[in-house]
Amino acid sequence: MAGTKIIDVRGRELGSAMPLVCSPLVGRTRERLIAEAANVAAKKPDVIEWRVDYFEGIADAKAVVEIGGAMRKVIGDAPLIFTRRSVKEGGEPIPIGDDEVVGLYDAIAASGHADFIDFEMGNDPGHVKRVRESTRAHGARLILSYHNFGYTPGQEFLVQRFLEAERLGADVAKVAVMPRDRADVLTLLAATAQADDKARIPLISMSMGPLGAVTRMIGGVFGSKLSFAVGEGSSAPGQMPIADLKTVYEIIARARGSA
Amino acid sequence: MAGTKIIDVRGRELGSAMPLVCSPLVGRTRERLIAEAANVAAKKPDVIEWRVDYFEGIADAKAVVEIGGAMRKVIGDAPLIFTRRSVKEGGEPIPIGDDEVVGLYDAIAASGHADFIDFEMGNDPGHVKRVRESTRAHGARLILSYHNFGYTPGQEFLVQRFLEAERLGADVAKVAVMPRDRADVLTLLAATAQADDKARIPLISMSMGPLGAVTRMIGGVFGSKLSFAVGEGSSAPGQMPIADLKTVYEIIARARGSA
Repeated sequence: MAGTKIIDVRGRELGSAMPLVCSPLVGRTRERLIAEAANVAAKKPDVIEWRVDYFEGIADAKAVVEIGGAMRKVIGDAPLIFTRRSVKEGGEPIPIGDDEVVGLYDAIAASGHADFIDFEMGNDPGHVKRVRESTRAHGARLILSYHNFGYTPGQEFLVQRFLEAERLGADVAKVAVMPRDRADVLTLLAATAQADDKARIPLISMSMGPLGAVTRMIGGVFGSKLSFAVGEGSSAPGQMPIADLKTVYEIIARARGSA
Repeated sequence: MAGTKIIDVRGRELGSAMPLVCSPLVGRTRERLIAEAANVAAKKPDVIEWRVDYFEGIADAKAVVEIGGAMRKVIGDAPLIFTRRSVKEGGEPIPIGDDEVVGLYDAIAASGHADFIDFEMGNDPGHVKRVRESTRAHGARLILSYHNFGYTPGQEFLVQRFLEAERLGADVAKVAVMPRDRADVLTLLAATAQADDKARIPLISMSMGPLGAVTRMIGGVFGSKLSFAVGEGSSAPGQMPIADLKTVYEIIARARGSA
């Protein structure tokens, strides 16, 4: 709520009252990825995320960039998020180290195929700075993210993750955490609302798993501007189908518009 | 979550994982009420509430009981809640005093037409005791309720409202409050979850208005066992249509069942 903070990408507004729906691509081969991109795009998510840590050819930066281009053609005008999620934050094991990952990010940013690039804020500060510079140089938006698949830290810690992302130069801040009980789900929502009152960039948040699934539906009310939904395959626990999420959004919009 | 606390009424389980959907009847005349009861029953809410404070003939206890019987025939096997809401807690002005209201409650309890009777816990303690005794004598369930249309009191105060209802002998405790900001919405949900961990009776809660509307959808996750939805007319701000609420419940059930 602090100032205007809408990011317009390919006609989609990240930051407006209606959250965007994003579906992940989790294919392991070029062939699967392109087929998945076509199938998922047909389901009309607002945004598509390529979780490149699932791709078995990730060590070949040239191949990754080439697939990015092919994907771009298949998904039409949907904004694309390029993401390597680390094992520590819920991703797949990959055969390359962090330096090579940053090189890959440079190459993708330079290619112009990705509209957003997601990088974990817990990475080496030098790497964060370099990814910040390379995305800025090439006109991509930077999402700095924090994930905790083990538990939900306290509210103030979570608020600080959002604000730290902003301080590090993020265009968007993302926080995803695992709840152990119902109170944890509310902690994530409260932290999001509190950070949204302070931050000048759009926020994305979710409480994961079955217990947190409702935050994917109602997070928009508390300041989360994007929610992940299953296209073909899920990339995190608690994601629901695109159509279900869009149905809930329409019902929430009607309910909030009334009264 | 404290022990088993499911109330089975006419085959509907108040207290199970899936919250019940209740629609209010707000007709002012016998004719309107019976027509409304038929129309609303056709939309298949789980429960129907007669908000008798809207009825212009409320001073005539005999007429109220007669309408209760006619309504009973029209709504089939749907459980019926009989409620006079006071002006102080969001209801309509009525031409009778509290003593006569308690007499009316006695008559309705004795008639057997109502399955639940909602009485505000803020009423005179002697009246609360009498309604408690008369519902128990006639096999009706007592909902003791607290409403605040002005603001959302603190979490501990709200927890105490639920527990006070239980202490006073309620079969069900209900708390409905108005949020002024997003944090208030989370306060209501947190209070419900906390009280649900302690109470041995089913709870009903909601944050009202457009801001609180999402609590009507996801309250079940935090311990609220019933939600009000519009049949023909709304009885409080933020209520959505029965079909919308049921759609959201189905999507939440699928999302929580998966993982």
